[in-house]
Amino acid sequence: MISKKEIKYLVSLKQKKFRYINNEYLIEGEKLILDALKHQQTIEKIIYSKKGQNFDAIREKSKILNIELCLTTEKDAEKISDTKNSQQIFALLKCMQLKPLNLVKKDNIKPVIIIDGISDPGNMGTILRTCSWFGYYHIILTNNSVELYNPKTVRAAMGAHFHLENICKDSVENIISYLEYHKYEILTADLKGKNIKNFIPNKKYWALILGNESNGISNKFQNISQAIHIPGKGKMESLNVAEAASIVIHYLSKK
Amino acid sequence: MISKKEIKYLVSLKQKKFRYINNEYLIEGEKLILDALKHQQTIEKIIYSKKGQNFDAIREKSKILNIELCLTTEKDAEKISDTKNSQQIFALLKCMQLKPLNLVKKDNIKPVIIIDGISDPGNMGTILRTCSWFGYYHIILTNNSVELYNPKTVRAAMGAHFHLENICKDSVENIISYLEYHKYEILTADLKGKNIKNFIPNKKYWALILGNESNGISNKFQNISQAIHIPGKGKMESLNVAEAASIVIHYLSKK
Repeated sequence: MISKKEIKYLVSLKQKKFRYINNEYLIEGEKLILDALKHQQTIEKIIYSKKGQNFDAIREKSKILNIELCLTTEKDAEKISDTKNSQQIFALLKCMQLKPLNLVKKDNIKPVIIIDGISDPGNMGTILRTCSWFGYYHIILTNNSVELYNPKTVRAAMGAHFHLENICKDSVENIISYLEYHKYEILTADLKGKNIKNFIPNKKYWALILGNESNGISNKFQNISQAIHIPGKGKMESLNVAEAASIVIHYLSKK
Repeated sequence: MISKKEIKYLVSLKQKKFRYINNEYLIEGEKLILDALKHQQTIEKIIYSKKGQNFDAIREKSKILNIELCLTTEKDAEKISDTKNSQQIFALLKCMQLKPLNLVKKDNIKPVIIIDGISDPGNMGTILRTCSWFGYYHIILTNNSVELYNPKTVRAAMGAHFHLENICKDSVENIISYLEYHKYEILTADLKGKNIKNFIPNKKYWALILGNESNGISNKFQNISQAIHIPGKGKMESLNVAEAASIVIHYLSKK
């Protein structure tokens, strides 16, 4: 049985501060854990209660990989969990180190998604999932974006975290220098932009900046980016940023 | 000051059962309430606490429209609220009656979005927002979909509820009869489907069926629908249903 001290530690990982200090995060549920195992994530340990279902597949794989399996009580599993109807199985993973942009290999230039101040963890997770679906693993976060390892982000990303490779975090200034140095075509979705149907990218690589849900992209990005617009015939004020991202990324992926 | 009995009633509206019995729901926050006022929604009353910001715009419009403004305590506002950082202003609205399909006017045939067992209220709200953005107000819900007036749905929809006109709820069987009678081109997004890039709709009206997050669309819909697929180059198992919906709806809107 797992110790009270360890439970306390796992519960502490709900807070950003402790994830940051310890560089670890928890994932929850059979599907996500199997996905982490499939994609060779470094799993420190797996924690489960007897209330959980039969986790035979997880048990089998953990044995082969020599991952510690820890039993806990249902009550403690509830405490660890971030969801209402917990499956009562968790895995403890190492967070990836977010590199600054000057550590990106110079020969590794690709289309890039810039997450500039996204504040809703569900949106963040959904955007990561969409990026991973389309194969865009080069993601740059600004310092004011919601944390990558927020439990809600992890849940919405549905395993996208296991595919992120070149993820960076840097200041708006450094991101601009990077994009300009590498001659990116810099785009953003904005109501005042050019109709996406009439937009044809004309540089080799594009960068899409996704801004904050209420305030849009940072001022400094506004001066260097080209706005494109997804026309709507309806009465809504705007599309959700994750939806706009999906539409634009899909559109650019066809080019 | 609002009575304890009324507070109890407002808190009860967090539960589906009481929304159903009373045919009322609450919206929360200045932006959404101003939007409801702008779009002539029938507002029963507005409830606010002194903790809230200056709601001058709401106060002004409410006076003109003769809407009752009720002060409550901060503590009671917390109880009413469904969010963590409540703005402490709420409006009580009437739910729309969801018609069965046989009450849709025969001359009112339009493209239609069918929500077939979507279970996550955030996804439901996002899909409603996207439909409203693109001007698709004709939405049909199956009986097993998450409720339209779930507080999380309402929040994610960002006012789409105020634009829904022809929203229906019916059985899968009745929906199929309706679609076949009106000769709809019936589509669904599925990994095994035809690449969306190669798909050209060839009937006047299309119906897009959006299925449950885990189990997809109902079996009966599978036999009558044409699957289209959004190709990805990444390692993810699937796209989120709301993202798939946005991409397909945007694609079909261009045609």
